[in-house]
Parts: sequence; C-alpha cells; structure tokens
Amino acid sequence: MLGTALRLAQSGGQANAGALGFARATTDWQALCADGHVDIVAVTAPNALHEPVVMAAIEAGKTVYCEKPLSTTAASAGRMTEAAERAGIVMLVGFNFLRNPMIRLAREIVAGGEIGEVTGFRGRHAENYMADPDMPHSFRTHPEGGGALTDIGSHIISLARYLVGRITEVAADFSTMQAFWPVAPGSSERAPVEVDDMTHALIRSESGASGSLEANWAATARTMDLSFEITGTGGAVSFTQERMNELLLWSRTPGRSGYTRIEAGPAHPPYGRFCPAPGHHLGFNDLKVIEVADLLEAVAGGARTYPDFREALGVQETIEAMQRASAARSWVGVMAAETATRVRQ
Amino acid sequence: MLGTALRLAQSGGQANAGALGFARATTDWQALCADGHVDIVAVTAPNALHEPVVMAAIEAGKTVYCEKPLSTTAASAGRMTEAAERAGIVMLVGFNFLRNPMIRLAREIVAGGEIGEVTGFRGRHAENYMADPDMPHSFRTHPEGGGALTDIGSHIISLARYLVGRITEVAADFSTMQAFWPVAPGSSERAPVEVDDMTHALIRSESGASGSLEANWAATARTMDLSFEITGTGGAVSFTQERMNELLLWSRTPGRSGYTRIEAGPAHPPYGRFCPAPGHHLGFNDLKVIEVADLLEAVAGGARTYPDFREALGVQETIEAMQRASAARSWVGVMAAETATRVRQ
Amino acid sequence: MLGTALRLAQSGGQANAGALGFARATTDWQALCADGHVDIVAVTAPNALHEPVVMAAIEAGKTVYCEKPLSTTAASAGRMTEAAERAGIVMLVGFNFLRNPMIRLAREIVAGGEIGEVTGFRGRHAENYMADPDMPHSFRTHPEGGGALTDIGSHIISLARYLVGRITEVAADFSTMQAFWPVAPGSSERAPVEVDDMTHALIRSESGASGSLEANWAATARTMDLSFEITGTGGAVSFTQERMNELLLWSRTPGRSGYTRIEAGPAHPPYGRFCPAPGHHLGFNDLKVIEVADLLEAVAGGARTYPDFREALGVQETIEAMQRASAARSWVGVMAAETATRVRQ
Amino acid sequence: MLGTALRLAQSGGQANAGALGFARATTDWQALCADGHVDIVAVTAPNALHEPVVMAAIEAGKTVYCEKPLSTTAASAGRMTEAAERAGIVMLVGFNFLRNPMIRLAREIVAGGEIGEVTGFRGRHAENYMADPDMPHSFRTHPEGGGALTDIGSHIISLARYLVGRITEVAADFSTMQAFWPVAPGSSERAPVEVDDMTHALIRSESGASGSLEANWAATARTMDLSFEITGTGGAVSFTQERMNELLLWSRTPGRSGYTRIEAGPAHPPYGRFCPAPGHHLGFNDLKVIEVADLLEAVAGGARTYPDFREALGVQETIEAMQRASAARSWVGVMAAETATRVRQ
Repeated sequence: MLGTALRLAQSGGQANAGALGFARATTDWQALCADGHVDIVAVTAPNALHEPVVMAAIEAGKTVYCEKPLSTTAASAGRMTEAAERAGIVMLVGFNFLRNPMIRLAREIVAGGEIGEVTGFRGRHAENYMADPDMPHSFRTHPEGGGALTDIGSHIISLARYLVGRITEVAADFSTMQAFWPVAPGSSERAPVEVDDMTHALIRSESGASGSLEANWAATARTMDLSFEITGTGGAVSFTQERMNELLLWSRTPGRSGYTRIEAGPAHPPYGRFCPAPGHHLGFNDLKVIEVADLLEAVAGGARTYPDFREALGVQETIEAMQRASAARSWVGVMAAETATRVRQ
Repeated sequence: MLGTALRLAQSGGQANAGALGFARATTDWQALCADGHVDIVAVTAPNALHEPVVMAAIEAGKTVYCEKPLSTTAASAGRMTEAAERAGIVMLVGFNFLRNPMIRLAREIVAGGEIGEVTGFRGRHAENYMADPDMPHSFRTHPEGGGALTDIGSHIISLARYLVGRITEVAADFSTMQAFWPVAPGSSERAPVEVDDMTHALIRSESGASGSLEANWAATARTMDLSFEITGTGGAVSFTQERMNELLLWSRTPGRSGYTRIEAGPAHPPYGRFCPAPGHHLGFNDLKVIEVADLLEAVAGGARTYPDFREALGVQETIEAMQRASAARSWVGVMAAETATRVRQ
Repeated sequence: MLGTALRLAQSGGQANAGALGFARATTDWQALCADGHVDIVAVTAPNALHEPVVMAAIEAGKTVYCEKPLSTTAASAGRMTEAAERAGIVMLVGFNFLRNPMIRLAREIVAGGEIGEVTGFRGRHAENYMADPDMPHSFRTHPEGGGALTDIGSHIISLARYLVGRITEVAADFSTMQAFWPVAPGSSERAPVEVDDMTHALIRSESGASGSLEANWAATARTMDLSFEITGTGGAVSFTQERMNELLLWSRTPGRSGYTRIEAGPAHPPYGRFCPAPGHHLGFNDLKVIEVADLLEAVAGGARTYPDFREALGVQETIEAMQRASAARSWVGVMAAETATRVRQ
Repeated sequence: MLGTALRLAQSGGQANAGALGFARATTDWQALCADGHVDIVAVTAPNALHEPVVMAAIEAGKTVYCEKPLSTTAASAGRMTEAAERAGIVMLVGFNFLRNPMIRLAREIVAGGEIGEVTGFRGRHAENYMADPDMPHSFRTHPEGGGALTDIGSHIISLARYLVGRITEVAADFSTMQAFWPVAPGSSERAPVEVDDMTHALIRSESGASGSLEANWAATARTMDLSFEITGTGGAVSFTQERMNELLLWSRTPGRSGYTRIEAGPAHPPYGRFCPAPGHHLGFNDLKVIEVADLLEAVAGGARTYPDFREALGVQETIEAMQRASAARSWVGVMAAETATRVRQ
C-alpha cells in the first residue's frame, strides 16, 4: 500500500511540475539529494517513508524541511535527530499550526505569567475527513504509522508542548469505530481498519498541570477543531483553529471579568508582514508561508529553528507512550528524558 | 466540620422561615419526618448527612426529594435505594440541569437516531467557585464525600448517562492544585486540602462510545461550563449551560452542513409553561420549578420519576470507580450491573 | 376588533383566576379600581385601551403598573402623565427588559465614562412572531395603535433613551411586507394589513450621537434580537437579549484589545437576589420579578420609579416622530422638550 | 495633499520594486500606459486620481484593474465607464470582498430562493482605523472624494447590490465626530476634518426590500465588521468579515429551526483551489489572489467580469445619492437607471 502511495505521489509530482511551470523536476529522491544545485530538501512523502529521504538529505548536507510527524516510531525519529544534530544541518519539522500569530501570542501570554501558574490543559484535534464509511485506505490508515493520533494528534501534542511544556505521564484509549474501509477509491473490496480513528488521553505535564487530549479524524461535526483551553491560577487562554484569527484571554477585573476575544493584527507578529491593518484574516496557506520564511531566515542567519528534530522526537515519544498506555490500560511515563540523553551520546 | 455546617444550616433555616413568611418551621429533621402533616421531605443537608434523614423519611412513608449527589459512597446510596424501592415511595434526586428543555431535546435527538450511532462523548463541568486561594473549608472540601468530582462531576456524569447510557469503564486523574485553605471564613489558620479540585477522566459507555469527562471547581475562566459534545456517525449535538437556552445540532446537507443553533421555545416542552413565545429565556431557578412540578406530578399521578435513587446510585458507582482508577493509575470497570443486582435482591 | 380582544381577555381572566387559585377575581376594571382593598392596579389591556383604566386607577389613588407602551398616541400618554403627576401616585411602565442586570451594567459603564464619549448607537428589536402569513389579526395589528414599531420598537427606544439619552431627530421608513392576514384564527377571510411589520430609522441623540434603530416583528430568523452596540471614543458595549446573561465590553489594551464577554453574576445587582453564584442564568420571568420588586420597593419606600409615565411619554413621542418622518420622507424633530413643558403646566 | 500622496507612493514604488526583485519598474504612469510590453494596468492611486490613469490605459487598449471606488464622483465614473465600454477592454474594479467563497454562497442561496423573497437588508462596514484622534490627514480625508462612506461604505454598497439588487432610494446621515486631525504624521499642526467618519443610511432596493447601511471608520471596537443580515420570507443569511470563513443560514424545521454555521470548504468554489479539505481558512490575501485569477481568466477566455465599471458606477451613484440625502435631510432617489441609459448612448 505504501508503495502505491509513493507511485501515485510520483506521477502527481510530474504533473504538478508541469502545471506550476517548474524549470526542473524529478521524482527520484536520491537524485534530488545528490543534486549540488539543491539547497533545501522538503520531505512530504508518507510518514513511514521519511527516514531514508531525510537521512540521504542529511548526508548530503542539505537543509531538511520535513513534514510532520517526523516519523512513525520514536526509534526512527531518534536516528534522524541524532544524525541531523551530528551533521549540524538546519532543519525544521512542519507543525504548521505553530506559525499562527495567535499561537505565538498564547505562548507569550502563558510564558509571561499573564494567567498565573498553569493548572490545566484541555486540548483536541478533531476533524471529519475520515468520518465517511466509504473513505478508501491510504498511507494514513496503514498500521505501520497511521491512525488519528499519529496524523493529527501529533499537532495537538506539539501545541501542548509549545504552550505548557513537556508531557510526562499519560493514560489513553484508542478507538476504531470504522471496522472496514475500501481497499482503494471506489473499490467494493474492503479491508479491516487497524488504526485508531479516535484517541482520548489524560496527560500530566512536567510543570504539574493535568488535562486531557483528543485526536479524532471521524469527528462528524468538526472540520478543524484544533483547540485548547489553558487554565492558570490567574486567568486562561482559549483557542480553536476554526477561528484561527482569534485568541480568547480571560482576566480578572471586579465586575468585568470574562473572556476577551483578541483579533489578529499588526500587534501580533508576523501578521504585519501580510497586512498593515487588523481584521484582515490570515489563512491556512499563510501559515505555510510563515513556516518557509522562518526556515529561510534560519538558513540565512544561522538562527535556531523550532520545532527541530529533537522536538519532533519528543512528540513521537509522547505518541508512543499513549500507544503503550492504551494497550496496557494504565498510566505510563513518557520516556523523553532518557531517550533524549541516549540519542545525544 | 460537618457538625458546624449543620448548625449553620439550622440557624439559617430559622431565619429564612421568618423572611419567607412560612406558617410553620422546624430545624429538627426527626420531628419533620414524624410530622403527619408533612407529605414531602426535601433533603438539602450536606451530602454526607443525607442518609439518616432520607432513611427516616422513607420509614415515615414520605415522598423524598433529595439533593444530588444522593450520598457520598455507593454503599450508602445502595442502602437508600434498597429501602426506598422496598417502601415503594415516590422519590427524586435533584440533578436539576436535566430539567432543561434543551437537554430533553438533546436526549430526543440522540435517542431518536438523528445523529446516527453515538461514537464519542466529551463532557465537562467546570466552574471557578473554588478557584480563590482564600476560599474557606466547608462540607464541600471534607475528605468524607467532598471534592470537585462529587460536587459537580456528579452533574456531568448524570448527563452522560441520561444522554448516551451507562458508563462501564473509566480511567481518571485527581488533582489538588490548592494545597491549603483557611479553616473558616476569614481565618488565617489554614488546613490542607485533601479532596480533588480538578478531575480528568476517560470513559467508555455500554454502547461502545468513548470519551472524556472533566470536573473542575477551580477553572478560573468558567462560571458554568457544564458542557458536552456528543458525536454520532451522522451528526452531533453540543451544549453548554453557559448558554442554557441553546442547543447546537449538526446535520449533513451538501454545501450547507454545519452546527444549527436551536433556541429554546414552545416547541421544546415544558418551555411553553413559562412563556408562549420563543426567545424568552428560562433561567436556572426555572429548572428548579420544573423539577418540583415533575415531582408533584409523580405524586399526583403515580408516574415514575427520573432520576430516582437507583439512577443516583449509578452516578455514585461511577464516581467511586473514578476514585479507584485514579488511585490505581489504571482503568477500572464500573460495578453498576453487579451492585444493581445485589441491592435488588 | 379591540372589543373582541377585550372579551377574550376577560374570559381568559376568569379561567386563569381559577387555575391560579386566586381568592377573589373580577373582569370588571371599574369595579377593580373602585375596590378599597386594592392597592395596585396592573394594566395589561390592549395598548389602545390603557387610558380609561389608568385614569380610573389614578383617580382612585392606586399605584399604577401599566404595560408598555403606555399608550398608542403621545396625546393620550400626555394626559395620563399629567394626571399621574398631579395625583402624585406611584407608577411604573413595564419596559421589562430594562430590569436585566446586564442592562443596568451597560448603563453604569456608559454613564461612568468607561467607553469615553458616546458617538454611535445601533439598535434593533427583531422577532419573528408575526412572520407567519397565516397569523390572524389582533389588537397588535389594529391601525389605531398597532404595528411593529409600537409593539416592540418601543422597547429598543426605551433602551436607547436609558443608555444614551433622549433621541432628538429621526428619519424612518415603515414597511408592510405582509399584505393580508386572516381576520381571526383559522379564518379563510383575510383583511389588509395596515400597520408596519418592519421599521428602519435613523436617529440623533441629544448628546450628538448618531445611529440607527430597527423594529421588526417579521424577522424570520430572530426570536429575540433586542440588541445594540454603543460605540464610544474609548470603547464599546454590545448586547443581545438572545444572550441576556452576557454583556460585551470592548476596551483598549495594547495587543490585548477586544470584546470581553461579561457573564451575569452577583457583582451585577440584583442578580445575587436570585442566586449566590455566577453562571446561573436569569430568565425572562425573573425580569418581571425584578420589575415587581422595584415597584413594591417604591410603594414601600417612596423612591422614584423608572420608567415612569413621563419617560413612557418620551418613548411615545419618539414613535410618533418616526411615524411623521416616514410619511414625510424626511427628517423630523422629536417634540419631547416642548411637549414635556406643556404637559407639566 | 493629493500631490504629496502621489509622491510618497512613487518613492514607495521604487523601493518596493527593489525589495520584490522586479525586473523592471517605473513610477511614471504615462510611460507605463505607453509601454507595449504591458498588458494589464492596475490602478491603485488615491481615488481622486484614478481617472487620468484609467483613461490613458483604456486609450492604449490595456486591460484595466482599478482599485475601488472607481472614482470619487459619479460623473467621473460615468466617463470611465463610457470610454471602457466603447473600447471594449477587459476591466475589473477591486471590490475584493466579493471574491469570498462564502459571499458567492450567500448569493447562490439568495438568488436560488432558499430564503424566500427578500424583505430586509441590514448591512455595515465598520472599522476602527480612523478612530485615533492623532491619525494624520491623507487622501482618505480629502474633501474631494474622501470619507468613510466613499472609502468603506462603497464595499457594503457593492455587497448589497450583489446580493439583493440595486438600491433605489436612500436617506442618510453623515457625521464627523473628529473635529481636527494633524496635517501630517506626527505634526502638531491640525486641520479640520471635512469628511464623514460615520454615515448611517436607510435604503430601499429595486425588489422592495428595506433596510439600513452603516459606514464607519471610527468604530472603536471593530476591525472588520463588514457584515449583513439578509431576511427573507422563508429564511435568512448572516455574515461578518470578522469571521470570513463562515456563513450563517437560517432555515425552518419544526423544533430544529436556527442559524446553521456553514464553514468554508471545497463545496464552496474556488476554495478547493487553495486546499482540498474544509476548515483550512482562506485569508484576506487569498481574496486578492482570487480576484486576479478571475481577471486573468477573463483576459484569457473573454468572459465578462464582475464588478465592471458600470457596476462601480452604480455604487458611486448610490454614494452620491446618500450625500444628497444627508444634505437635504430627506429621502432621495438613486439616479442609476437614468444615468445608465445616458452613458450607454
């Protein structure tokens, strides 16, 4: 199945190169990595196929811009992290939602103590793109690295880590509501679904906050509920990607307490690079533009990027801890600290 | 501490009787239960003190209207349930939020199959009434039956059971963010807080749905987020008590899919008993009026009430399962079926 | 038609008296006003019939609690105002939405200068109770005092006056979208509709603010959009009765500006008389309870009431100005100041 | 002042050409229009300076892409319209908000009769970019063609015409809340403000609908409230650019009536050209991309564009009618039909 996905991607690649008017194009990733005129390799292959491409690009000294999740196992993510750090390359993992000026604002608010000490995090990434019982199998549903938690749970985990720090303990519950899916688009042959389409989890963070996470790609009513509420002892922030140009901030004022709906504007960088006035929304594709700009600035100026491979490894370790916790029906610790030490040596 | 609470309640009772112009009043519950002119005993004592009052009222053949939760242990709730069923009295437990016409509508929608088969339940009861570090101890914070899960978690559990059925398995995480509280209002002496102020839980329902629950009385930004989203294979319903006159219903229509905000009106009984036109909100106190009316109709007509003691026992068993799960750091089953059989014999 | 309405009301009155267990009841308003045991006369007759009842009650020295609008012409309202002031009775006109704690808060905010100098008022009272083409005629549709502006436009005018002061100039546009309605419930005979079902108006206030008002009882999608946004040089407040327990307050804070959603609570009197904790909504009927309590306190303590007849006269004069403006297709001044002087003499 | 604006724009032009890496650039519009290698002239000069540039471009047979409003007087707009139609050039006026897929959906819903017959339109374009008392004068505040109605009122007028048809009669009220502004950025010298910063208007459409419009660039609390509610006999649609990826559609279903929040997705062209999945927002800049794509498709395929100069002329005539109405303090007709006939001959 992954082979098919790759072939489809390759033929799509050739067609797109023509449509977009690229001067040169190839569907041979090895040739790409060997090409001396190429500075940056963007890896958008199916998740389970990232490692060989990334490794070749690292070896060739390229800047590597890899789609999220970095890999489908922590072991694989650990190998890439180690190699990239040793080679000293510039790298970025495409957790694109972190690029939203409103998310940067949320981090500024939390890190600056505006809501006091964080006590709770309630997060979710829920969409309905796999709610259709006639959705065909794809690399997303491959047992080796697919499933809702890997595909979109990785987003809400990366957000949680960005905003309230490392997740250290988890309990989790994987569900598969859809029993069978067509083996290919339009096929009447069906194969069992072996990955989670909905995962609920409990979390504890390194700072002592507790909370819950949900990853759900069969959430009938939701198109992009990548959302959270962070509660602190003195306030709270709340957000949903369904209204990505707004951040809710709760602060205490006698008789006037409440959630304030802050709208994106030039006061929230890098919004001003897109428009000089507030109220003119950024869209999803603008987040990708910001991501690429951040990468290019890192290439140009030697600045550190975020999230790098080590951060993506932390996300992957959290996912694996949830997988173990669901199987064991008990809480488990996230192995991040230990793993991190090991892969660093 | 509970003794103090009771004494306060008694003196408050005498004062209130005067203020409200009651012809007769007493603060002696035993005298009340023995009084042949009394038909209904409403039990609003601190939770851990319900049982003796309820038992005396049952013995005297009264109708019993008991505040939620019915008790603070399943064993106690089981004894009351058994006694009440044996005596054949009319009984009601005050899970008042179930009285909301919008909640009845949600149940009608779910039970009628309008959202297909239920796959997920995400619920929460979050308020900030105990977020204040200078909040004094009270019966609510007594280790014998207090805490956020008991006090308000019981509401969201009763809602979950009403809407999607019995909860059969749970994992849970009790947190106590506040370490110390004053021993009495205004006191500088502080005693440790031994109950949860925030509990996160994972749940599985008898129908196979999975989800999460939160009970949080230190949710800084929330005054009444008794809320849920129920996802089905064909739609969803979403609600928060912060907007108690609205229910969101998602249905699928090509190019027109989305959440519809239904406003309470005469189409949603018993709204029409309060106002003949839609858009005129019901308030919290109206829910208590509906509750009392339902009880009186049961007394008058012999109809069954909901939730009765057995239902309240189910809520209590779910709470205890969460307590065990949090202590064990693993999933545990809710003992409802077995207990139910046992107490029935 | 008005006679029919009255007869229906009378027979309804007798039935209700029985259902509610009143010790005494009458449908003879003259007997009522003559009854020495009666202290307060509440006038809820069709609008065009208020005057004789009110006049008799004034003459008998009763406290008069009259439904809004006080009358259907400024001349009639002026006579009642003059008589009531001369007699020195306690009086109240039932603009019940003014009783909402959130509206009192809005006034406190505006009057206290929290949003700076008021520059704009954008208001509306839109409902759909007359959107049905099979709605029968009633006193509401009687040319002598009916129509959307009189029936519900009076509410948004009273709110505008309460919050930003007297309206001094208006332009207006009356529409009648429904051409015919049944003459009686279920009748196939139809009579033309001679009143406005939708009125749009421009306003100028005595303080120099400009804005618009709408009264619409055929607003298909609206059940209770009694709403406004008041813009000031330093902030704004926004409200809709569809979410009557919330007030939006905008204030300027660099990078954090936005509308804050304030939820009703004990900080907003007299909310605390209904519930000691925030987040427990008040409902429409609670506004009537507050109204009656305010009246009784005025009776007991001799305090002034608001809105009194003179205020209701001001509302009526504004309505008449809009009627003249719509007919003349030009701006007209509201005669309030002059009239006020005249009736006072 | 306009000369200064032009000089600033010119020097900005040279700087931008360098920053963006343009191969060729000029700040001489006459040279631009004379250049045989140029196919399309985009006119973004201050509004009062459009005409000479547009006329030169038409004369040279260029495609003309002119910023809104087309001009600052109907006479000027009429001349351009006549010249462009005579020359048969491809032309587009940049009312960019019309490009939003949600606005196209609104039009499809209204035109398709999904909300029945339109009875009311309530629209507004309110922002706060001129609410600052230290905002300097600019071409926007020049009496010859500036002011809130011209600058942003033109947007809501174009939307009203697109959605419910031509506006035929208006009453209006121009306000100038700010008396003085600095003559230049940072200057302590102040000059009087001679244009409206807030205009409220009543409208009647050719189909008989009535309603109101507001243009306000000093709306303290608003960053982009380009919003409307269109009421029909069978439903309604509601929208605000503050949530530009959502359209609210009200439809009648017994017990389930309410506003449905439709989120932008591939079902709403051309959203799918930006992203294959719903919930990934479009932003403001994407609207400009759609606008340019529409223009290029018209150039390539000879399709008609919307809005063309004649449509922009209609907007201008509506603005002028509002100016006359405000001055006359009475209703005036919009001269569109007559003008249209005249310029066509």
